[in-house]
Amino acid sequence: MACGEFDLIARYFNRYRTARQDVQLGIGDDCALLTVTDKQQIAVSTDTLVEGIHFLKTISPADLGYKALAVNLSDLAAMGADPAWVSLALTLPEVNTDWLEAFSDSLFEQLDYYGMQLIGGDTTRGPLSMTLTIQGLVPAGRALLRSGARVGDWIFVTGTLGDSAAGLAILQDRLAVNDDKASQALIKRHLRPQPRVLQGQALRQLANSAIDISDGLISDLRHILKASDCGARIDLDLLPYSQEMQQYVDPEQAVKWALTGGEDYELCFTVPEINRGALEVALAQLGVRFTCVGQIAPLSEGIKYQRSGETVELEWQGFDHFAQEVAS
Amino acid sequence: MACGEFDLIARYFNRYRTARQDVQLGIGDDCALLTVTDKQQIAVSTDTLVEGIHFLKTISPADLGYKALAVNLSDLAAMGADPAWVSLALTLPEVNTDWLEAFSDSLFEQLDYYGMQLIGGDTTRGPLSMTLTIQGLVPAGRALLRSGARVGDWIFVTGTLGDSAAGLAILQDRLAVNDDKASQALIKRHLRPQPRVLQGQALRQLANSAIDISDGLISDLRHILKASDCGARIDLDLLPYSQEMQQYVDPEQAVKWALTGGEDYELCFTVPEINRGALEVALAQLGVRFTCVGQIAPLSEGIKYQRSGETVELEWQGFDHFAQEVAS
Repeated sequence: MACGEFDLIARYFNRYRTARQDVQLGIGDDCALLTVTDKQQIAVSTDTLVEGIHFLKTISPADLGYKALAVNLSDLAAMGADPAWVSLALTLPEVNTDWLEAFSDSLFEQLDYYGMQLIGGDTTRGPLSMTLTIQGLVPAGRALLRSGARVGDWIFVTGTLGDSAAGLAILQDRLAVNDDKASQALIKRHLRPQPRVLQGQALRQLANSAIDISDGLISDLRHILKASDCGARIDLDLLPYSQEMQQYVDPEQAVKWALTGGEDYELCFTVPEINRGALEVALAQLGVRFTCVGQIAPLSEGIKYQRSGETVELEWQGFDHFAQEVAS
Repeated sequence: MACGEFDLIARYFNRYRTARQDVQLGIGDDCALLTVTDKQQIAVSTDTLVEGIHFLKTISPADLGYKALAVNLSDLAAMGADPAWVSLALTLPEVNTDWLEAFSDSLFEQLDYYGMQLIGGDTTRGPLSMTLTIQGLVPAGRALLRSGARVGDWIFVTGTLGDSAAGLAILQDRLAVNDDKASQALIKRHLRPQPRVLQGQALRQLANSAIDISDGLISDLRHILKASDCGARIDLDLLPYSQEMQQYVDPEQAVKWALTGGEDYELCFTVPEINRGALEVALAQLGVRFTCVGQIAPLSEGIKYQRSGETVELEWQGFDHFAQEVAS
């Protein structure tokens, strides 16, 4: 539905022309037209970001343009898919060209980096929000599912955990970090999470299951355990922290953020013993840390947390609830 | 991002299980996984509907569930594509299970009718709006584009024009129709537009170009003319009206609604002389009227309107603007 100035916005997003060979028709007709081969499968994911819920009112348009895509890329990464196309539905309270330029520059910078093409969308007036539907390609039968974990698999995570929650706490004045560089590093982890796209692709033939950590390790690992009918043992001593986290955050708070903080957009994946050697080789060259934090256990064991070799109870709210869900 | 009760909503939309063979993985993992053959292309379209802009606050959830999908199906119809998958991003101010049941029942009824599958989406809290990304399949190279119109092509429309605008006028007390049956018929055309999916598919080998009429015949035909570098002659005497329109709406108002009313979701398409016979055969059996309303002319002629064989000027606002755009 045409809407005057909102048509202009649509044209704004048409400034850029990353042309993919598999896009016969991009923006400008009733539909985009895409070509896929028999040997590929399409991975599709949709995420909505609403102001005040998924991002702070104070976020810059450049950070928002980055984050909106990064969050969606992270879903593709968790399937081991190669990013291809994105549709953007953008709802704006007003037409602000400075805002639009910063937002779209940031979005397209990342699209170009991944060789992706914006193939369509919609622009409407309303409270600030956006929905992205992202599509990627994966060799047929090779996608990383949540349902493939097996008892005995090692549980790995990429990067470090909890930094995004710490960065958000700084932005909300709930955490004070008196070193500016450290403070900025943590904030950056919140505003500019790095989707682990290459890592996901490298894991396609090595991992039995994978998910991206958007809600915290425990919550997302729970999805793997439910889909795979398994339990898990997590060794709290092995949780990977950034230097900033170790230096400026109380250890108990760090554990909590690592397990439940959310928005890290690291990958959690499970690897059978036989693939551990190959994993080292495949991931080492990608320059991102990866850490074994536990092992998949039989369903009957539920989830257990260990410290110094001893099982410990975590008494934070939400954990009993979680245990029940896994058991049920 | 999990959000308690909003997780429940997601599960709500998981009640239904239309299983398509080309969906390896539907709702429930990081992405859906889809399979397409070399012989098909994918047509993708995204539409956002915001309360107060694209639908009235008073709309019933069942009508909204219907319309949200119908509007998107209409885009696929305009490409001649066969509907396959849809992703739904739903933003709701609150969790109202009665509302959700009526909305999703209506949505899924239509999905089932077209053999489509809901493959994913997102549910968030916020002002009522929804974004659907719909995908369909079309034999490779056979999609109906806006850019294929040629001078001499006959311009056709399906169904009747202006009814949706008349129905909206009734709902907004701008039009009084004292016959209840006629009034309901027009309102239904606004609330429950019928996407011309089968007609679009039948046109794949017959039409040179096509678009769906969402903004009014003139505005949408303009897109064909711009994409095809053509002009057009429209015979106002040929515009197809419903009986209700002829009986209850002033003729000048009827012309205006037919040309600029919007939301009819009929198809406008152009057919070369050589295909007119085959068109009659192909569309006749689908039970929907189709009418020749004019002819594609050289670009230099712009758009001309005729009545009783004479060129007439339309002095409504927006038409000069349009003429300029076509000329530029």
